[in-house]
Amino acid sequence: MTTPRKVAVIIGSLRKGSLSRKLAHAVIAMAPASLKCEIVEIAQLPLFNQDYEADPPATVRDFKARVESMSSVLFVTPEYNRSVPGVLKNALDIGSRPYGKSSWNGKPTAIISVSPGAIGAFGANHHLRQSLVFLDMPTMGQPEAYIGNAAGLFDDKGLLINDTTRGFLQKFVDAFALWTERNAAR
Amino acid sequence: MTTPRKVAVIIGSLRKGSLSRKLAHAVIAMAPASLKCEIVEIAQLPLFNQDYEADPPATVRDFKARVESMSSVLFVTPEYNRSVPGVLKNALDIGSRPYGKSSWNGKPTAIISVSPGAIGAFGANHHLRQSLVFLDMPTMGQPEAYIGNAAGLFDDKGLLINDTTRGFLQKFVDAFALWTERNAAR
Repeated sequence: MTTPRKVAVIIGSLRKGSLSRKLAHAVIAMAPASLKCEIVEIAQLPLFNQDYEADPPATVRDFKARVESMSSVLFVTPEYNRSVPGVLKNALDIGSRPYGKSSWNGKPTAIISVSPGAIGAFGANHHLRQSLVFLDMPTMGQPEAYIGNAAGLFDDKGLLINDTTRGFLQKFVDAFALWTERNAAR
Repeated sequence: MTTPRKVAVIIGSLRKGSLSRKLAHAVIAMAPASLKCEIVEIAQLPLFNQDYEADPPATVRDFKARVESMSSVLFVTPEYNRSVPGVLKNALDIGSRPYGKSSWNGKPTAIISVSPGAIGAFGANHHLRQSLVFLDMPTMGQPEAYIGNAAGLFDDKGLLINDTTRGFLQKFVDAFALWTERNAAR
């Protein structure tokens, strides 16, 4: 068997009980053996300031190096104010700089947007896609994942208990494994 | 004469030599007497985390109180990765919370997007508009302000030296004064 592809799983919410984090854990647990998924945290990053990018703090250097070591990136994110959470966009901005040294460049990616409401964070999902075009990250089209009414999908321990969603996510992550295999440079 | 309306000017870039900051200063200087424009800084804010919103740090409390004291809001922002800078979106997210206590609610607003490139940060301008719909901030339609090729508009001291842009910005800020007067609750 070939070495598994490393996948950076990036979660767009920092709160401890985040639905996106619960969903990320569920997806990681059902990923096929060809993927090795690791959560890459973003809470420790500073607000992006171009004045510091020539000599960035260790948190920024470590984040960029970790992303660069990965074959692909899976974003699991809520929607804030009909768009991408500022905390997630900040991580994207930090990883994209300095000019010509983006850590995201060319890495295949997919998005799962997650919401307690019915619309499934569609606004965040598609705003994020616009940035991923610029970052030249091949972004999986189908299946699209807008996970709505997400609060009811988990038990008290944060485990996914909805079989329909489980079946959908299995198809999603299997498709993402193929997408990664087809598009990854490393 | 009536008391001037207070305007929060929020700048989407943190770097010292920011073109958006230079442009904001130019607009503030040419604002009519009916507006009192003040830059409200966002660099001191933490990354938004819902776990802390019940007992927020002083920087968050001060920011929200300051925004709430204003009649309207003028955003002057660059584009990062074809969207709103994470630092600006983070400030929007922080001001919007906790649920039901948004500091932005109902305040009239306008956007000037600024870029060294030709497209004038169109992507940031319109992603920001989508969030402003949700935040129920009446957003001025015309004139639209996509300030492209912005590096050449200022002299070595950061002063606006392009008369065409100056004339356009005068029309913009005069229209924004009317927009504020018509839509402000306070």
